[in-house]
Amino acid sequence: MTATTANSERSTFNPGKGAGQPVGIAILGHGTVGSEVLRLMGEHSEAFAHRIGGPLELKGVAVSDLSKPREGVDPELITDDAMSLIERDDVDIVVEVIGGIEYPRKLVLAALNAGKSVVTANKALVAAHADELADAADAANVDLYFEAAVAAAIPVVGMLRRSLAGDNIQRISGIVNGTTNFILDAMDSTGANYDDALAEATALGYAEADPTADVEGHDAASKAAILASLGFHTRVKFDDVHCEGITGVTAADIEAAREAGYTIKLLAICERVTDNEGREAVSARVHPTLVRREHPLAAVNESYNAIFVEAEAAGSLMFYGNGAGGAPTASAVLGDVVGAARNKVHGGRAPGENTYANLPIADFGVVPTRYHIDMEVVDRVGVLSEVAAKFSARGVSLKTVRQEESGENARLIVVTHTATEADLSATVEELSAMPDVKAINSVIRLGA
Amino acid sequence: MTATTANSERSTFNPGKGAGQPVGIAILGHGTVGSEVLRLMGEHSEAFAHRIGGPLELKGVAVSDLSKPREGVDPELITDDAMSLIERDDVDIVVEVIGGIEYPRKLVLAALNAGKSVVTANKALVAAHADELADAADAANVDLYFEAAVAAAIPVVGMLRRSLAGDNIQRISGIVNGTTNFILDAMDSTGANYDDALAEATALGYAEADPTADVEGHDAASKAAILASLGFHTRVKFDDVHCEGITGVTAADIEAAREAGYTIKLLAICERVTDNEGREAVSARVHPTLVRREHPLAAVNESYNAIFVEAEAAGSLMFYGNGAGGAPTASAVLGDVVGAARNKVHGGRAPGENTYANLPIADFGVVPTRYHIDMEVVDRVGVLSEVAAKFSARGVSLKTVRQEESGENARLIVVTHTATEADLSATVEELSAMPDVKAINSVIRLGA
Repeated sequence: MTATTANSERSTFNPGKGAGQPVGIAILGHGTVGSEVLRLMGEHSEAFAHRIGGPLELKGVAVSDLSKPREGVDPELITDDAMSLIERDDVDIVVEVIGGIEYPRKLVLAALNAGKSVVTANKALVAAHADELADAADAANVDLYFEAAVAAAIPVVGMLRRSLAGDNIQRISGIVNGTTNFILDAMDSTGANYDDALAEATALGYAEADPTADVEGHDAASKAAILASLGFHTRVKFDDVHCEGITGVTAADIEAAREAGYTIKLLAICERVTDNEGREAVSARVHPTLVRREHPLAAVNESYNAIFVEAEAAGSLMFYGNGAGGAPTASAVLGDVVGAARNKVHGGRAPGENTYANLPIADFGVVPTRYHIDMEVVDRVGVLSEVAAKFSARGVSLKTVRQEESGENARLIVVTHTATEADLSATVEELSAMPDVKAINSVIRLGA
Repeated sequence: MTATTANSERSTFNPGKGAGQPVGIAILGHGTVGSEVLRLMGEHSEAFAHRIGGPLELKGVAVSDLSKPREGVDPELITDDAMSLIERDDVDIVVEVIGGIEYPRKLVLAALNAGKSVVTANKALVAAHADELADAADAANVDLYFEAAVAAAIPVVGMLRRSLAGDNIQRISGIVNGTTNFILDAMDSTGANYDDALAEATALGYAEADPTADVEGHDAASKAAILASLGFHTRVKFDDVHCEGITGVTAADIEAAREAGYTIKLLAICERVTDNEGREAVSARVHPTLVRREHPLAAVNESYNAIFVEAEAAGSLMFYGNGAGGAPTASAVLGDVVGAARNKVHGGRAPGENTYANLPIADFGVVPTRYHIDMEVVDRVGVLSEVAAKFSARGVSLKTVRQEESGENARLIVVTHTATEADLSATVEELSAMPDVKAINSVIRLGA
């Protein structure tokens, strides 16, 4: 290909040229994010027009409840007929900020099929149906953007899709749920137990009335699926992610972690592993994880999010910021709108789904990890040796063992070296069956 | 504009289509970065072809010394005629990793004028000649990428150009020079003086034999110019940046900072300010800065870099990683190569220079800042009141004053509230002229 050919194959772009060409926007949803998107679009319209090469024109806002007052929005733009709005000829980009899965899925597919680019903030939708949405975007040759679906304004999607496109990603570990980070940070800094920390998070608006999706790790699992898909060029869906929440984390666990030099974080971990057949595979998982106090992720407090990426050439990178909230989410949505609008005006298309690596998804059992096990054992000669024998029978070696008095029993805290999840969990099962092991107080994996 | 029009104006892209279309690459320079770029291009060629939609084909590597052995490179690809290589018809993208300014400037301009997209890691070139290079890229309708020019693999250029394109940036403060951060961190953690810390940095390879560009802040000033240009859509050049290095920072300064709860970092600070005529203006500056120990930038140790961005909607974001070195720089270069190559194959163009805001550059004097002043005064009744009067005469109010014995004199440590640089520096000049002020030990600005 010569340079001349390359140029003539591209639509011609000229800095001043697109200056008058408007780009029509439809917004589906007018909640916290949607209203903030509208506010910023109005406030910075001139700047956006310069960045795009033409003005954004709001064509309509679809809502479910027409009777609700919509401050600052021209009433003529409000509609409850999302589908008709999407299908209008003068709508180029559809912004989906509704939430849920089935209804937005129908709308987003309709928009893509009608040749509109789509910007969505919907992690559950993307994690469940990325394949179908990507196929529709490819078929229609339009863009599907979802920066806001992971960690709001922290531009991790763009970073994985574009900035690290020349590198080889090894591992992504992230604090991607603000509610659980707030709760764990409160437990760590005040010694509170889980219920009290959750109550505080709810009172301060960091946790929803029904916190299940956050505290059980489902929200983080959606984000893990998206991060793993982008990082490893493989389709990883919500159901492929091993997920454990934080409801079982106790004040005693946090205290034991602190004594050993760790803090407990709910991490989404995506990494390359070797499966049982010796193939390279992808593991994506969410679980409470011991993080060394010196690790950058340990310093991520309150409801902040952070993504730690290890890549072959770049080394370690960390991205830190607000992972939720109307304004940070709107920032990410509008960054995507500007990108999609530039492509409408100047041609070109953002990097789409790329699944060429097509790695198998690893069974959770093959994942290499380390356990921190806190147990009560009968305080008599020979018990330690019997416990140690259970580990060595499974090929698990121990890094540290601490024994201390605990009433009439002994408390034994064991930190293993790396072994597979299957060997470690089987060992714990065998330990708990030993008559001299009175209780397994907690098992927490080491992570970062 | 209807969606149909939009689509027909774009070059047609189809996921499978470009699979065979090769993109020709010329690499100018075969030093630390160039050789790492070549290694990674070879190692991950298949992945890159998938991400681009066609294979990268290396057409030549231009070097200055033909006699030097070039391990792993086909000797037929080596040339010392960079200009002829650039002009070859089968070269689509030129990668400049030579360094210096005048010679690479000539080559990069020739490449852009010949319709080749350019990827450069050269911060000095971009900070000095961004306008000329951007004009040439616009005239030829090609891409000019320079992610590696600021903080290597930390994708701050892409973040400012794309991810935050829907937001309004208020302030960027960054640790963008690893050498000086290593020296300041060593002084802070060991109590070493500047000369010893510099010697250690040199011995470990963190400082060059002639460390001037780093320790005098010139390297950071180039990066500040680039960050300010991108963040505020205004042409800010190296000469517009107020620049002070770290050679005057003493062990006593570091100790005084620690006592007050700060660490000293060399920050590149870019922000919106109000100039003397009440207009919004841009300030870009580099100087040693007191950073609160709790601020995320305070925890950036050794030679790591970090960029802290404050934006209207996104809030505070931080990006952290390796800011130098062959592999991290090559990661950034190759991310840009993949982007430029995608555009060659599929059409479209990356966001280029955008200077629509065209803000004036603020005089350093109007910049609002705060001073930490450490001085020796005669120990007699009334001196403190006379010193305080100098501040109030300039309208500068004091946040904290600490007086302690110092031999026969008194040591006075004053931290001001915010005032303009002009008022603060004039006050210090007046203080130093007072007979009762024996010495101004140090003046350091507060930053983050």
